This record gives sequence, structure tokens and C-alpha cells, in this order.
Amino acid sequence: MSKPKVFEKPTGFRDLLPESVARIREIEFSVLDCMERWGYSQIVTPTLEFYDTVGVASSIEDRKQFKLLDRNGKTLVLRSDMTAPIGRVVSSLLRDEPLPLRLSYHGNVFRAMEEEAGRDSEFVQTGVELVGDPSAEADAEVVALAIASLQAAGVKTFKFALGHVGFLHGLFGETLKDHPEAQEELKSCLLGRDYVGYRTAIRRMGVDEARRGELESILRLRGGKDICEQALSVTSDPTAQAAIAHLCEVWNVLEAYGVSEHVLIDLTMIGNFSYYTGLTFEGYAADLGFPLCSGGRYDNLLAQFGRPAPATGFALKTNRILEAAGDAVRKQQERVLIVYGESRRAEALGKARDLRTLPGKVVVTRHAGTGSVAPWDPAALHKFEQGGYRYEGNVYSDVLLYLAD
Amino acid sequence: MSKPKVFEKPTGFRDLLPESVARIREIEFSVLDCMERWGYSQIVTPTLEFYDTVGVASSIEDRKQFKLLDRNGKTLVLRSDMTAPIGRVVSSLLRDEPLPLRLSYHGNVFRAMEEEAGRDSEFVQTGVELVGDPSAEADAEVVALAIASLQAAGVKTFKFALGHVGFLHGLFGETLKDHPEAQEELKSCLLGRDYVGYRTAIRRMGVDEARRGELESILRLRGGKDICEQALSVTSDPTAQAAIAHLCEVWNVLEAYGVSEHVLIDLTMIGNFSYYTGLTFEGYAADLGFPLCSGGRYDNLLAQFGRPAPATGFALKTNRILEAAGDAVRKQQERVLIVYGESRRAEALGKARDLRTLPGKVVVTRHAGTGSVAPWDPAALHKFEQGGYRYEGNVYSDVLLYLAD
Repeated sequence: MSKPKVFEKPTGFRDLLPESVARIREIEFSVLDCMERWGYSQIVTPTLEFYDTVGVASSIEDRKQFKLLDRNGKTLVLRSDMTAPIGRVVSSLLRDEPLPLRLSYHGNVFRAMEEEAGRDSEFVQTGVELVGDPSAEADAEVVALAIASLQAAGVKTFKFALGHVGFLHGLFGETLKDHPEAQEELKSCLLGRDYVGYRTAIRRMGVDEARRGELESILRLRGGKDICEQALSVTSDPTAQAAIAHLCEVWNVLEAYGVSEHVLIDLTMIGNFSYYTGLTFEGYAADLGFPLCSGGRYDNLLAQFGRPAPATGFALKTNRILEAAGDAVRKQQERVLIVYGESRRAEALGKARDLRTLPGKVVVTRHAGTGSVAPWDPAALHKFEQGGYRYEGNVYSDVLLYLAD
Repeated sequence: MSKPKVFEKPTGFRDLLPESVARIREIEFSVLDCMERWGYSQIVTPTLEFYDTVGVASSIEDRKQFKLLDRNGKTLVLRSDMTAPIGRVVSSLLRDEPLPLRLSYHGNVFRAMEEEAGRDSEFVQTGVELVGDPSAEADAEVVALAIASLQAAGVKTFKFALGHVGFLHGLFGETLKDHPEAQEELKSCLLGRDYVGYRTAIRRMGVDEARRGELESILRLRGGKDICEQALSVTSDPTAQAAIAHLCEVWNVLEAYGVSEHVLIDLTMIGNFSYYTGLTFEGYAADLGFPLCSGGRYDNLLAQFGRPAPATGFALKTNRILEAAGDAVRKQQERVLIVYGESRRAEALGKARDLRTLPGKVVVTRHAGTGSVAPWDPAALHKFEQGGYRYEGNVYSDVLLYLAD
């Protein structure tokens, strides 16, 4: 057989070695435990869904979804987010469950990206959906839970930016009423955080001095609760005003949660997804340029599955949290290697069984070598006594028990 | 918008609701913890792999693999097992790690089945691979770990059947030397456990009395260690004799592990996968017709990835273990519902925060209702006092705290 030349993975896919897996699992356990304490129950949905239902309802652009055909010629997609599948479940299997429903998930999602450097095509999201509660209390609950989840994951320094899609919709609708393409251009600049481009575009549009002032002033609308006061003076549009009032209410609840130190208001923030209908938020760690968490209210999705209901939620980018959470607290483990001669096999394996019942003990056994077993290296014991023997391939042992014949 | 008629999932795919998820997670934690104590480290591989490398090397038939094309026209597969991807990792990312390597995994695999009733197209496997040790000690270690894993998962009554591909290869090679198609027919009967068909086929073949007796006698070769003695008298073929000797050695080591009560020898067992090269085994629970675990030695796989090495391992069918493990031990939880009036919000949310730090407490909060919040049902308190109030949709609470204005 000719030896294949490469054993690569498809672009954007990764293997995770034991150290990364152990840290991701710690984060997974801590975060799901936190969500459970807040009353959220975990569900699991399939990796493959029908394109015509879940694929179409997903917030992720069509061209970024992995597609395949089933045996009957129907198009399937690898799920690109977890919110649309959960919407399907809430409207089918959980159709008779009274609202509100608090659900959590932990799963891998898929995005067929352009072959950009460093963009993952498969990554893990851990998140919640709170379905059936339209209140500011519900919005604040998911933000407070997102904060608690990042803390549970070991992220120490972070900020959540809160925005509301109604503010820019209202303001632009009022200021650039007859210029939908200009509105889109400005939103696109803000989505890309291109503030220079935003100012340039406004100047090019030739709006009058007063409106230019209004449009530019929103770039300063980032900060604490007082930003809401300032924003109220920028616009008298009712949609924008209602958005600001809602943000104020959410802020008040977050103060009651005692977490407002982690929050700022950013009225220039535009949710990545066109389907957000109210509050949107993103969580950033210090010194990292990408969000660790994003979420918001999506009151129109559930209707697409035949059970109209308000809903709000967030997803943590679990793989990325690794980079923000710093070094994991190493589990207290003692690694024991038991080497035994033929005559003491039962004694050695019994000892291994007993040790494995103790907390933090990892035990590997090895025949000293006869018959089909490669002989035990006689220099090993000496090497071990000199400190740290690398045994059985990939693991160092702390303790060696040598049960010689 | 017209309301779509169905929100189904593709054939063979399932949603798991909170109770199932909680039980599967308990099994996952216990089993992976057990594997870790035995020195096995978990790795994670991507869901998609190249067909030309991992798909081709997989033990699963081509027609059962889900395939799709990437942007460059290369064929990708949804992984159909975990062993082939781990072979890829051992030969690439872990190429410089000395053997033996002890690796574990927990992941979903995909099989495009015919649309048979009840066959899952996606299911979870939890397993190990021990790479680089050809000995009977290594074979016995993975069997003993499979036993410990089922026990950790809460399965109380089970048996592992041990076979060896060399026995039937040798026996049939000797008895039906010039009749490869007859050998295949008999193997196919044994694979399907069709013992009537096996006897009928032998009679139809018209072999002489002595050989017929030999071939029929193997159907009785199921039982304890004494089966090995009996089997030695059936055949003098050296391959078959070596297989029996190896099985005896494995049995001896399993006796030293103190687990031989869970093991029987079944020389009629044929591994499902053509790639097994030595010991094969399957674990069955009482009263369940399907195996919970299957494994064996596959010494030829790693060479396909350019790093020839002996290897042995097993996979647990984690979803199926649910059916055998009986009812889960319900976690000790107290579910608290806190309902609060506007003026006592901070007090209520602070109380929730404190309670959530206590072991086993799940806390849901609810505004008693003003403003955007739907009013709290005044009959609720009364209902609760009458025993068991269904709150916030999907969860019953054990305790109600009502902090009225």
C-alpha cells in the first residue's frame, strides 16, 4: 500500500489535545452548573437539520452553512447556531410546556467561512434561551447570567456592552428618513466599528449641520447609565426613546443584581444578526479583540416555527474563553506507575484498583516483561529515582511502585 | 408569512430533553473520570474529516458514511467512528510522543443507515485506544477498563463475550481450505448469530462427517476458561491454536484483575469490523438484545496513517447505556422560587445569589408584576401551599419565597 502523503484536516477544523480538552471541560462543567443553578435545563439537538426549516430560520447567512443532501434529495445543514434548533424544539416536542421556558445548551456549531486565517469552521457554544418573557427583568436576567457564567469560567476582567436595535433604527429613521441606503451604509460602518468611515460617510451625505451633529454625537454614547440621559436629548423619535427607556430599566435591574460594574451602554452597537429585535449585548475580556459572549432579544424567531413567543438568550464562545481564562487550576493528581513481575500480577492489579478509588489518583500498570510483553527497561528505575520518569508514552508519573518477582 | 406544516428532524436524528441529557451527562462524567484514573487522556477531533484519509480508513462501510463536498471539491465525511480520527492524530500531531499512548474520547458519530426503524444516524460513543502495546496484558487492560466503565455508568448486570478472529480464520482455513465462498457464508451466519442457518449451510456443503462435527462443535464453544481446552481439541491449525493460547493468557490477566466473573469466551463471535486483527469483545447487559460496548485489537490501522503500531480499544454506546443503567440517582436538589415586589428587587436578587452558592440549590426569580412584567397570579401562593406549584414553565419548585412590597 502506498503511504498517503498528508493526514490533514479540512480547513478550519482542529484537534484538541488532552490539556486543552481538560480545560474546556472544566469550563463546560462550571458554566453548565451555573446555568442549572439559575433554573436552566440542558437540551441536546441533532448536528444535522433540514435546511428548509432550521437552516432558513438560522441567524447565520446561507453561504456560511455547510449543506448536504439526504437520500431523498432533501437539503440538510450542519447546525450553524443553537438558537434556531431550540426554537424548533420549543415549538414541537415542548409545544405543550407552559412558558416561560429556561433552556441551556452546550454544543458544536459549524460555519463554512471563507478561508480566512484563524477562523474556525467548527466551535463550541454554551448558552441559554429564556422563552416567553418579554420583560426588562428577563433581559437583565440573561445578562446577569452571562456575567455569572464568565465568572464561573474563570474570566476575571471583562465588560458587557449593552445596546438596543430600536435606538439606531429610530434615530436613522428620523434623521435619514428618505435615505434607506444611507442608513444601511452607516449601520454597516458601526457594525465594523469603523468610526472614521462613519464620519466620512456622514460628511459625504451632505446633511445639514444640526443632523450631522446628531449623527456624530452618538459615537460618544458609550458609558454608564448617564448615557441614557444624553441619548434622550439626541433624538425625539418615539422608537429610539422607547429603546432608551428599556435600556434604563434593564440597567436598574442589573444594579439590583449588583453587577452594573461589569456593564456599559454602547448605543453604537449593532447586533451581528438581523434577527435581534430589542436589547443586544456582547461580553469582552480585557486585552482580547473578540467577544466571548453575544446575545440579545429575538422576538420574531419562534413565530417561524408556529409558536410565536418573545425570547432572549446568549451564547458563550467556549473555545475562546480558554484564551481569556488564563491558566487552569491544575487538578490535584498523583500519577502512580506500578510495574510488576509475573508472580505478583494479581497483587499489583489489586493495588491499582484500590488506588484508583482514592481522590486524585491516576494509576497505570505495566508488566515487567516476559512472554509477549516487551521487557521493562532496567535503567527506568534509576531514571525515575533521579526525578520524574516519563512512562507509558505521554504521562509523567509521580510515584513508582516496583513489585519485582 | 405562511406557517410551515412540519418541523421535523432528518430521519434517525433525535432531540434529547433535559431528563435524558442529565442522565447522559452523569454517565459521561463517571465514565471519563474512570478512564482518567486508568491513565487515559481525552482528546477531541473534528466532526468533519477528509474522505480520502479518515473516511477510507474507517471501519464503517462506505455507503453508511455521510458525505459532502468542500469549497475545493474535496469529499468530506461526518466521522463514522472515533478510532480512525484518533489514528490520524497519533500519526500526525502526536507523531513524536513515545508509545504506548493511552487516549480516551467522548463524541458523536454518524451513520447514514437505511431507513430502518429505530436506527440512530447520530449517537454518542465514549471509549479508549491503547496504542503501541501488542501484549495480552494490553488486551486484558482494555477489557477490564470496559468492565469498570460500565460499572461506573451504573450498569449492574452484564457480561463480556471474548473472541479472537484468528480462531475462525484458522479453523475455516483448515477445514474449508479450497472453499473461500463457503467460509464467507459461515462467517456471515455467525455474524448474524443465525445458528440454524449455519448448520443448514454446513449440511448443504456436503463436507464429510468428521469435518461437519468439527464445524458444528464450535457452536458449543461458549463458556468459561475450560472452553479454551475444548477448542484446542477441535483444531490443530496453528493460527487457531495461537488464538486460543492468546485468549487463555488474556483470561489469566482478567482473573488477576478480579473480573473474570463478568467474562465468557465465545469462539463463534465475529467482530463486526473486518479490520480487527486479534481479540474482539462485546459487552451485553441482562435483557438487552444489543451490545453496550464493542472493541478489540486492530493492529493494521495505524500503518494506513504512516505510523505502524499495534492498537486495541473499545467504544461504549453511551445513549444505549441509558436503557441498561436503570433510573438515575436523582441529584439532591432544592428548587426555590423567589417572587418579589418592585421595592424588594435588590433584596430578592441578592437572596437568589446567596442561595445559588449553596450545594444543590436551584433558584428562579420572578417579579410579582408591574410595568412590562405580567402580573403574578394571586392564586399561585395558595396553590403552592396546597403542595407543588408549577412555576416558570417547566420546573416545579420545592420552596416559595414571596417578598411582597
